[in-house]
Amino acid sequence: MTPTTATSTFRAIDVIRKKRDGIELSRAEIEALVAAYTAGEIPDYQVSAWLMAVVLRGMTRPETAALTDAMLRSGEVLDLSSLRARKVDKHSTGGVGDKTSLVLAPLAAAAGVTVPMISGRGLGHTGGTLDKLESIPGFNVNLPVAKFREVLETCGCAMIGQTAEIAPADRKLYALRDVTGTVESPYLICASIMSKKLAEGIDALVLDVKTGSGAFMKSEKDAAFLAELMVETGTRMGKQVVALITDMDQPLGNMIGNSLEVIECVDILRGTGPHDLRELCLELAGWMLHLGGVAKSVTEGKQQSTNLIQSGQALERFRQMIELQGGDPRVIDDARRLPRARHTVEVAAAHDGYIFSMQCEQIGTACVILGGGRERKEDSVDPSVGIVLHKKVGDRVATGEPLATIHYNDEARAARAKHLIESSCEVSATGPATMRPLLHRVIRSSGEN
Amino acid sequence: MTPTTATSTFRAIDVIRKKRDGIELSRAEIEALVAAYTAGEIPDYQVSAWLMAVVLRGMTRPETAALTDAMLRSGEVLDLSSLRARKVDKHSTGGVGDKTSLVLAPLAAAAGVTVPMISGRGLGHTGGTLDKLESIPGFNVNLPVAKFREVLETCGCAMIGQTAEIAPADRKLYALRDVTGTVESPYLICASIMSKKLAEGIDALVLDVKTGSGAFMKSEKDAAFLAELMVETGTRMGKQVVALITDMDQPLGNMIGNSLEVIECVDILRGTGPHDLRELCLELAGWMLHLGGVAKSVTEGKQQSTNLIQSGQALERFRQMIELQGGDPRVIDDARRLPRARHTVEVAAAHDGYIFSMQCEQIGTACVILGGGRERKEDSVDPSVGIVLHKKVGDRVATGEPLATIHYNDEARAARAKHLIESSCEVSATGPATMRPLLHRVIRSSGEN
Repeated sequence: MTPTTATSTFRAIDVIRKKRDGIELSRAEIEALVAAYTAGEIPDYQVSAWLMAVVLRGMTRPETAALTDAMLRSGEVLDLSSLRARKVDKHSTGGVGDKTSLVLAPLAAAAGVTVPMISGRGLGHTGGTLDKLESIPGFNVNLPVAKFREVLETCGCAMIGQTAEIAPADRKLYALRDVTGTVESPYLICASIMSKKLAEGIDALVLDVKTGSGAFMKSEKDAAFLAELMVETGTRMGKQVVALITDMDQPLGNMIGNSLEVIECVDILRGTGPHDLRELCLELAGWMLHLGGVAKSVTEGKQQSTNLIQSGQALERFRQMIELQGGDPRVIDDARRLPRARHTVEVAAAHDGYIFSMQCEQIGTACVILGGGRERKEDSVDPSVGIVLHKKVGDRVATGEPLATIHYNDEARAARAKHLIESSCEVSATGPATMRPLLHRVIRSSGEN
Repeated sequence: MTPTTATSTFRAIDVIRKKRDGIELSRAEIEALVAAYTAGEIPDYQVSAWLMAVVLRGMTRPETAALTDAMLRSGEVLDLSSLRARKVDKHSTGGVGDKTSLVLAPLAAAAGVTVPMISGRGLGHTGGTLDKLESIPGFNVNLPVAKFREVLETCGCAMIGQTAEIAPADRKLYALRDVTGTVESPYLICASIMSKKLAEGIDALVLDVKTGSGAFMKSEKDAAFLAELMVETGTRMGKQVVALITDMDQPLGNMIGNSLEVIECVDILRGTGPHDLRELCLELAGWMLHLGGVAKSVTEGKQQSTNLIQSGQALERFRQMIELQGGDPRVIDDARRLPRARHTVEVAAAHDGYIFSMQCEQIGTACVILGGGRERKEDSVDPSVGIVLHKKVGDRVATGEPLATIHYNDEARAARAKHLIESSCEVSATGPATMRPLLHRVIRSSGEN
């Protein structure tokens, strides 16, 4: 037999039909499809039909791993083997007030783990790490790879945006999914996240998969399915991966909005700040330190993290990273150096009782309305605006007592945001019978249990 | 409330998502999608994702009718109201040796029904009416609408190809379906067929839905589903529609290939020709005459058709139509005026027995290999080549006895076709236990039963 390459016999229509008919695709077929699409050899209209077939037919685990691998290898994979420490990253599926990355990168680095973090921007009701970092005057999230490596070598962590060289197939596929109703597939979400994260050249990955009214995955079942899929895909690709299913039924912490969230992260690194955010940061850091080989257990990792906060070393590392990436480190000691909104207004409780629930997505949308997030990718973001919550689910409130403070620059936007926040908080006579835990489940690959 | 038009609030992405999630689309949404796509206002990649969602999610009956109607109204609908007779057409889903249109148009016209027939070309293993007609020297299938109407007025029937004005949405959608694996949906097939047929300005339609190894719908279940869908869609659009599920498990008649099929049609109109083809033509004609209001029942319609053949009036009408459309009517009396292949070769039985089965699609493919059909739309067709069958399923054969004669112009192609025909005919000691009937079922709208 004459050996043939995958592409020599590849016809996109055959791969579309197979997926449409529910037949498993081979690794070679998936590789050929991704390679041909990235090279511009097959048109968008064929790939969008294939994507819709994937949304409705699903993928097997080997198909999902093959897709992730093909997307990963469509671009550059960072070679960080010259750095001796283990490389560990954290990824969150996104939520409202979800700001743990800014705490975790310097905290894990202070413990001796290398954290090469490539993050995204906010879209829709969820915020993005890059937008938060850019509220620090001068902070540069667009470092060239050589500089990224240099910052990593110096302080053990660096935080940048996706480069053109990392997983170009994902960028092209994501843009197409966005306009063809094919975003909502756990298989495609898994491949998109994992291809980008594994291109960072990491050894291990801690996934924070959100569930609840402010999460992309509203139900625990969907969140657990995606988490399990990502853990298995990463494991198949030879990485240590763990997923924590965590709560996003109300905002995380008290502050929502870019510069406000930086302030809250500094509070956590200083040993203060809200309890829920601190608890989640310690949980995730515990796993990062454990997988990073500097702590024997997650419990030990959490204890080390607590110590590094108390000693000031974690905050010091954050200061160093800001400076190395061109930012003004004085924001740490003087929050007034961060962009501030011109006005504030309070949202007051309409009657006595307990906060029964908060429609988390609505609160995120209120921040977008203020200008703190973006509806479309091309929108710009106002770093100064946001919301400070004074009450969370289960808290007692009296009539007229402030529920939240809105930081705003535009009167009309503030009025709309206020209305949305008012309607998002349900006050009842008794409050919820049971409080949702912050950490729902931990998912590791079946081989590790 | 301010009235809004369908398009003013239309976003393709919303319609894609709804269909993906299995939610029924409104008539306004389907109309807006078809109108925007036909006008070039939404890109192929969005429509192909929607088409794949339709393939996998299906459509309700109201959705199917709305899609058919929107495609129909994307172009011109012929106004034949000035012609007093009822306008009736026949459509076949296509098969091998399926040549009834050439018999039915003049036969029904001779009975006083007007038959404005707009037909297609062959693709893949199935033949097309236009290719058959064009084997008649001079025959013009591209008449302008005014001339089409004139031929109809003069002789009661005319046969042309699709014009640019008829259902342009179908042409655009079909081209996209062809390259995106979205041909195979009964809903899309129904809308494609019915939008073109109802644009002919007809009152009634007889559908010949094929089932068996040579048909597009291999299983009786799929054929019946499509038939029922087309009947209900036509009925919802105010037309009289009946569907006959007929057999295509072996070729229809004995001749396959363009000019050979014209010869066989002339035989039928002369009162000779093979039994199965005659029987099917009379069955379909019976329905056309009945729905056309010139026969009180199908039985009476069949009897009238038999009489019109015996009296020579049907053949005379065929001669007239050929002449009016620029063709050489002498082909009727002298088949040698039709294109003839240079060579013939026989396919002989390898052993004694009975024909147990014929792989009908393979025989159709053998004709394509000879040059008598097309693999791709842009291929040209050799009108002279083809296959004459001497045996059909159930017939007794002796070793060395001819099963078929191949008419060919190219030695290498003939060898390949011969091989395919040999392997397509299964000879056994006893033949099939039961013969498949030619007419499987008749499907009318539920309101009429």
